[in-house]
Amino acid sequence: MKEFPLSKVYQLLEPGPVVLLTTAHKGRANVMTMSWHMMVEFEPPLVACVVSSGGHSFAALDATGECVIAIPARKLAQKVVQVGNSSGRDTDKFEAFGLHPVPAKFVRPPLVGECFANLECKVVDARLVNKYNLFVLEVLAAWKDPAQKNPKTLHHCGYGTFVVDGRTIKLKSNMR
Amino acid sequence: MKEFPLSKVYQLLEPGPVVLLTTAHKGRANVMTMSWHMMVEFEPPLVACVVSSGGHSFAALDATGECVIAIPARKLAQKVVQVGNSSGRDTDKFEAFGLHPVPAKFVRPPLVGECFANLECKVVDARLVNKYNLFVLEVLAAWKDPAQKNPKTLHHCGYGTFVVDGRTIKLKSNMR
Repeated sequence: MKEFPLSKVYQLLEPGPVVLLTTAHKGRANVMTMSWHMMVEFEPPLVACVVSSGGHSFAALDATGECVIAIPARKLAQKVVQVGNSSGRDTDKFEAFGLHPVPAKFVRPPLVGECFANLECKVVDARLVNKYNLFVLEVLAAWKDPAQKNPKTLHHCGYGTFVVDGRTIKLKSNMR
Repeated sequence: MKEFPLSKVYQLLEPGPVVLLTTAHKGRANVMTMSWHMMVEFEPPLVACVVSSGGHSFAALDATGECVIAIPARKLAQKVVQVGNSSGRDTDKFEAFGLHPVPAKFVRPPLVGECFANLECKVVDARLVNKYNLFVLEVLAAWKDPAQKNPKTLHHCGYGTFVVDGRTIKLKSNMR
């Protein structure tokens, strides 16, 4: 994993890929699947996300204020679904689905070794957690795997249906 | 445009497409390009979005509490960029770029006739507007154009680069 500039983090999340969210709580790491996230600010990069309050990940994120957002490429689709269909309450998902936790630099939750990008995050605003389970995160560090060239990401359309990235088009624009 | 069930609205936004956001203020409609949005709740559908505070759309949304989120297919890419590169302060973007405003049912901002889906929204939580320009919206009504079959959407990766939807994969899953 190579350090990735914080100023470009939005380019990873703005397209709306399915991501994995890791947490660590009471000595155990966990990972969930998440599609409800968006950029909030370019730099320092802020990200908002919604984490279902019933789950193990919510309790960990709420208690520790730390997580990692990991972005899986298309080849991880089956694992993404397996992670989404199980609970950290009774399963060590890293072990069960062959994902490798890699120590992060600033936070306790691990990076996901198989993902092409990993973002270390801390909660900076919890005002909308009670009502909407909505956390505002700051990205403290970002990592990219240089061995994964031009990874295609997954976009969830509901019930295990995903659209995979197709071709890229470039139009003249001054939008950042 | 045919009415679309509110319970399925998340399937339109969860994949993370670039959208257009329309507003109406002081007798004039406007439209901007937006990528920073996410689902917050399934039903009634809640959506969060970030609207840059410098622009004409922010002032309108903040003052009126109403907007329409319109989803363009790939063929509208050039117009999406043109809308993103101009300001409602000095341009009637509907007229300038050949987009047709269509009256909505519950809100003053218009639907965009060329878009395959349109969501009528009202602001339901403005607590994070001051700090992050982040609005929480409720979708009051949703519309889909039955003439546009399997539209491919656009995902913005920064500076006018878009990934177009590629193929669809379906995996067995109990994730909604």
